[in-house]
Amino acid sequence: MMLQIGVIGSGRDEEKTNRTALEVGREVARAGAVLICGGLGGVMESAARGAHEEKGITVGILPGENRGEANAYIDISIPTDLGHARNAIVVRVSDALIAVGGEYGTLSEIAFALKMGKPVVGLDTWEIRGVRQAGSAKEAVSTALGLLKK
Amino acid sequence: MMLQIGVIGSGRDEEKTNRTALEVGREVARAGAVLICGGLGGVMESAARGAHEEKGITVGILPGENRGEANAYIDISIPTDLGHARNAIVVRVSDALIAVGGEYGTLSEIAFALKMGKPVVGLDTWEIRGVRQAGSAKEAVSTALGLLKK
Amino acid sequence: MMLQIGVIGSGRDEEKTNRTALEVGREVARAGAVLICGGLGGVMESAARGAHEEKGITVGILPGENRGEANAYIDISIPTDLGHARNAIVVRVSDALIAVGGEYGTLSEIAFALKMGKPVVGLDTWEIRGVRQAGSAKEAVSTALGLLKK
Amino acid sequence: MMLQIGVIGSGRDEEKTNRTALEVGREVARAGAVLICGGLGGVMESAARGAHEEKGITVGILPGENRGEANAYIDISIPTDLGHARNAIVVRVSDALIAVGGEYGTLSEIAFALKMGKPVVGLDTWEIRGVRQAGSAKEAVSTALGLLKK
Repeated sequence: MMLQIGVIGSGRDEEKTNRTALEVGREVARAGAVLICGGLGGVMESAARGAHEEKGITVGILPGENRGEANAYIDISIPTDLGHARNAIVVRVSDALIAVGGEYGTLSEIAFALKMGKPVVGLDTWEIRGVRQAGSAKEAVSTALGLLKK
Repeated sequence: MMLQIGVIGSGRDEEKTNRTALEVGREVARAGAVLICGGLGGVMESAARGAHEEKGITVGILPGENRGEANAYIDISIPTDLGHARNAIVVRVSDALIAVGGEYGTLSEIAFALKMGKPVVGLDTWEIRGVRQAGSAKEAVSTALGLLKK
Repeated sequence: MMLQIGVIGSGRDEEKTNRTALEVGREVARAGAVLICGGLGGVMESAARGAHEEKGITVGILPGENRGEANAYIDISIPTDLGHARNAIVVRVSDALIAVGGEYGTLSEIAFALKMGKPVVGLDTWEIRGVRQAGSAKEAVSTALGLLKK
Repeated sequence: MMLQIGVIGSGRDEEKTNRTALEVGREVARAGAVLICGGLGGVMESAARGAHEEKGITVGILPGENRGEANAYIDISIPTDLGHARNAIVVRVSDALIAVGGEYGTLSEIAFALKMGKPVVGLDTWEIRGVRQAGSAKEAVSTALGLLKK
């Protein structure tokens, strides 16, 4: 089974955050892991695009009921029709998570990940005890993978 | 329709937090609102007990599959079998939320509530922007009710 | 803890089915049980109205995100925002179920109930092995209660 | 986006049903579609094995919380921790469904699929109006694909 690494963050487009997410997506794919995300825009789309560019597999766990909601870089779309409760699934499906920026939705995912005892690495995100802060996309992914080996 | 006020917090028993939750539960019932909680122990049980003592109706939104998981003060038990995703339901069902102490599970509920635009009042809980901090159970409930009137 | 009896059926208004559901709701309340339903119109509304008329407590497990979706006879509204997945919760929350008429949504609930090993009594509904067919609202409720005692 | 075809059926091993499911899985992969299933044993495992043998991608939507529950032929595992409510997700994620044998769980999925207006093709399964019965794995998959083109 391939590792499944979740990338979480806001659905709003912000240039700097998107650039970071793109690089995180690339690193996830280069590491041979499946990219898990919420399937929508902003960080989710940029991360999926990065993984897609590196020939990785991308999975979008969508809040709505239509596969068509997924961004253009999603290979496997999982429309849950669970609304915000889908955030719990995004976390459950991921072996480790990387949070890039993000607002309240991302905070709920960080909280679930820590509750479930999964590694969470942060890049310019909520400062919550238990989140390992990283300085670059590359460091974030290598930290996440390192925590999984333990 | 009666107001439904959610009380969230840890399932672990801590004397001080339990005492506060008991008082919050009493105030919720005195205000004529239905008490919503996660149905288990700790803050959930104390809040339900407080509401029960004041003849209020108590609802427990449980993570597991058995009604029997509910604490002794729950009138209506809602076993969801959704695991942690039930936290999203606890929030959705509540018109406003009062957080008493709490750990990562509570943090996920605070995040969901703020994401959904619901009032959240805190008592010795996570300091997250958007949460109104209160100094007493009485103040917490009256603040929550006041925010709902706006 | 009071018994929680689910009444399931179509959300479409059909005179005969509604009349039966009204009577089922009355019988559930007379038996001292909480009425569980999907909270919307048709059978759900008629059953809730019946229980309400007999001073019973009614709970509506809604598919959407707003308490306002609930019909006028619901005391406790549980907006799940889970879409059709809420059908699994309706069943999980009920100690026994009574199906009145119904279409594919009701069929999913009957299937879940039988899968979970819960008693299901039918009134003019899907003929599925495992469902006890009853000839009247009164018989349906007494059969359901009888099966719970075993 | 690739088509996502769901194969549903019992988790119990039955030789004849497993053989049919294996062939259905092969046909799904040969058609270039992603195989969606519940990720466990019996029909789910046989269908995944068939798709895997034909180099298809397989997705398992699991009821529990651990990726390790997935059978050996699952590429992408989606542990939902939603219990039976995960059946609604299996259906939502699939563009069309093929039911092979099956018991009450499968019946709930057939009901959801028909409720959501998705094509359902049956092989020795529940006889419910709306389900197209097929005589072979090959016919089942080609019927499902044909219904999607309309």
